[in-house]
Amino acid sequence: MIVGGDGYCGWASALHLSKLGYEVAIVDSLVRRLFDEQLGMYTLTPIASLQKRVKRWKEVSGKQLAVYIGDVCDFEFLEDAVRTFKPEAVVHFGEQRSAPYSMMDRNRAVFTQQNNVIGTMNIMFAIKEFLPECHLVKLGTMGEYGTPNIDIEEGFITITHNGRTDTLPYPKQASSFYHLSKVHDSHNIAFACKAWGMRATDLNQGVVYGVHTDETSLHEELINRLDYDAVFGTALNRFCVQAAVGHPLTIYGKGGQTRGYLDIRDTVRCIELAIANPAKLGEFRVFNQFTEQFSVNDLAKLVTRAGAKLGLEVKATNVPNPRVEAEEHYYNAKHTRLVELGLEPHLLSDALLDSLLNVAVQYADRVDMDQILPAVSWKKISSKPKTVVGTA
Amino acid sequence: MIVGGDGYCGWASALHLSKLGYEVAIVDSLVRRLFDEQLGMYTLTPIASLQKRVKRWKEVSGKQLAVYIGDVCDFEFLEDAVRTFKPEAVVHFGEQRSAPYSMMDRNRAVFTQQNNVIGTMNIMFAIKEFLPECHLVKLGTMGEYGTPNIDIEEGFITITHNGRTDTLPYPKQASSFYHLSKVHDSHNIAFACKAWGMRATDLNQGVVYGVHTDETSLHEELINRLDYDAVFGTALNRFCVQAAVGHPLTIYGKGGQTRGYLDIRDTVRCIELAIANPAKLGEFRVFNQFTEQFSVNDLAKLVTRAGAKLGLEVKATNVPNPRVEAEEHYYNAKHTRLVELGLEPHLLSDALLDSLLNVAVQYADRVDMDQILPAVSWKKISSKPKTVVGTA
Ligand SMILES: NC(=O)c1ccc[n+]([C@@H]2O[C@H](COP(=O)([O-])OP(=O)(O)OC[C@H]3O[C@@H](n4cnc5c(N)ncnc54)[C@H](O)[C@@H]3O)[C@@H](O)[C@H]2O)c1
Ligand SMILES: NC(=O)c1ccc[n+]([C@@H]2O[C@H](COP(=O)([O-])OP(=O)(O)OC[C@H]3O[C@@H](n4cnc5c(N)ncnc54)[C@H](O)[C@@H]3O)[C@@H](O)[C@H]2O)c1
Repeated sequence: MIVGGDGYCGWASALHLSKLGYEVAIVDSLVRRLFDEQLGMYTLTPIASLQKRVKRWKEVSGKQLAVYIGDVCDFEFLEDAVRTFKPEAVVHFGEQRSAPYSMMDRNRAVFTQQNNVIGTMNIMFAIKEFLPECHLVKLGTMGEYGTPNIDIEEGFITITHNGRTDTLPYPKQASSFYHLSKVHDSHNIAFACKAWGMRATDLNQGVVYGVHTDETSLHEELINRLDYDAVFGTALNRFCVQAAVGHPLTIYGKGGQTRGYLDIRDTVRCIELAIANPAKLGEFRVFNQFTEQFSVNDLAKLVTRAGAKLGLEVKATNVPNPRVEAEEHYYNAKHTRLVELGLEPHLLSDALLDSLLNVAVQYADRVDMDQILPAVSWKKISSKPKTVVGTA
Repeated sequence: MIVGGDGYCGWASALHLSKLGYEVAIVDSLVRRLFDEQLGMYTLTPIASLQKRVKRWKEVSGKQLAVYIGDVCDFEFLEDAVRTFKPEAVVHFGEQRSAPYSMMDRNRAVFTQQNNVIGTMNIMFAIKEFLPECHLVKLGTMGEYGTPNIDIEEGFITITHNGRTDTLPYPKQASSFYHLSKVHDSHNIAFACKAWGMRATDLNQGVVYGVHTDETSLHEELINRLDYDAVFGTALNRFCVQAAVGHPLTIYGKGGQTRGYLDIRDTVRCIELAIANPAKLGEFRVFNQFTEQFSVNDLAKLVTRAGAKLGLEVKATNVPNPRVEAEEHYYNAKHTRLVELGLEPHLLSDALLDSLLNVAVQYADRVDMDQILPAVSWKKISSKPKTVVGTA
């Protein structure tokens, strides 16, 4: 069961697992499509409706996806879906996942924590009550760790202090109400594993890039979303689109911010590996799900170089950082556990950049230039609702 | 401004600060009185209505308490209260604070996290927007730390790992949805201090015992609440009441559970010290607010001994532990920062036990024996609402 299965990671994962022979259900409220409409920010790629996507997948693959449209914060709905479908694993992507969105105003900050924390609690309760053996695979983020000055481990760290030693949850320093909601989820899930014997894998995912996977490329109606705007667009995807339309790459602040990244084709593979090798009952397992580390400046250089090969002249510009974050810092995060399970990373090679850049060039006429510059400031967030006015 | 000022710690603190000459406002939705009615569990001491209490305090002390009755999850209400009263400090006690209550059923688990996390977010937003210099003094709990096998520091720990060193938030291992809500609050507040320059003190309080403070003893209509039931009663208070009515002390499991404790007279003094020595702008400060450590078995022995002096024959019994927690563990928590600010602890001497025991004896006829044994199990919590049936 893929919660958030209409979204960027969820759609690609649903098709990948379906292709592999798993029986797959998609649970999604489609609220992300509502955000797009409300903010007037649309995916670069023209995505089909969920109904059309699912129908097309049936035609292309012969496989049926079950669909449950509803909100996991609504327990009655969730209970019905879980009792009907009886999943062996629930992969939970279904959250509000944009840091800038969570920093737009108080309403959206509260919505983000409420939607994410309560949705996850409901899923935990549904599993406990109806399917106690079911494996919860929960999407977290590398952003939960922040940028500590020591190596980042996978979920836990062994600390020796005043002559005694214990292995404890790795300290969390998240830096937006969105990232914080993931920290809250992680603590709640760890408790449920301990108190109820639930089994869970927390995937602290890096920033995902790329569009196509083997399955979504099979038909244009299966195409995945690609966000490039300043609210939902993530770093590398955003840069590729900027390069394609001749907009300077927008480096926030000094550009030394370093994070873990991975190809969407690796996301779907990681989900496959997590499901195929479930946590034990009572186990709370944490994997850092990314393949390579880059600073923003690294990415800008890579995109500039790849753009040149396609004849694009790519410039970069430093814009004031709308976030509150360190712009120069130590960063070294472990990510061996998924590799041990068999992950063979796609590396961010020129080849990939070409393909991402090519998609960007292909759909360049869909780019709304007004959505590229950051308009959400971490410091200026207010308790008054931020009304989005249509562009003239 | 005392949020939760009608509650056990809040009422005593409001009077104490008022007595010292602070202008004090109480903000409270009175929802705790609703829980009491719904569960049919009442404080041992007969408390007056908030309106009567405040009127009586005016008569006794000549000081007026401002009162704002409403829910801090309602931002409009909170905005109005904050803009009208313009506090220099907000002391935030106003949360659902019972671990068993949060483990009764899914509804109450969700309510607890929602009420506590959103209420605190609203207070943060109100401070940021209307009174950016205002000092947030937030009640957390020692339960946020769990029972690690190393010493517990005050909020932060310096870790040397693979040859590098950083001072990071102390890892949290909470063990109920209530305790988890406090962990979430702490992370959210730490972020607001960093991102917005807010000033905050997180008081990780131990278990509070006692009834009277100098101010609440001035008149019987000022008396504080004393909870002894299995849902809202905390360890030592509960034992004293059990001793008074001849009920064996209910030790959960092996009784090796060790925690930090403090006298309610020290709670009010800690609040005074935190306000008088505010955090700096942008600072997120954590104090462990307790004075002594005891295991449940220690407490049972102390109550038995003190009871003997009053001629009470006190027995103890080990009941199956309804919680999921270690029953034998290392525990050594630092608590020097409040002492450095001038706290002079009242120690859990026989004297105090006498006075607590005396109060229990005084009101023994108000004890409902049906409310003493634990009825909420961490493992049996269900998604179905737990309906409380009136006792016949
Ligand atoms: N995209 C990334 O780079 C990235 C990086 C790290 C972690 N993640 C995590 O992976 C997950 C998926 O991210 P994404 O990029 O696919 O996001 P997305 O916005 O494209 O998809 C999320 C989906 O969840 C649905 N949803 C949200 N709240 C819901 C609710 N209460 N009930 C039912 N459905 C709900 C939305 O409608 C949407 O279809 C998120 O949890 C995100 O935090 C993503
Ligand atoms: N009592 C203890 O032993 C203890 C120990 C550690 C920490 N604490 C913390 O200290 C604080 C006070 O504890 P207490 O024992 O006085 O609890 P209490 O239940 O006696 O008082 C809490 C008060 O807050 C009010 N309240 C709850 N939610 C509210 C909301 N959304 N809006 C407005 N008012 C609301 C309730 O009506 C109640 O009057 C709590 O945050 C608790 O977690 C208490």
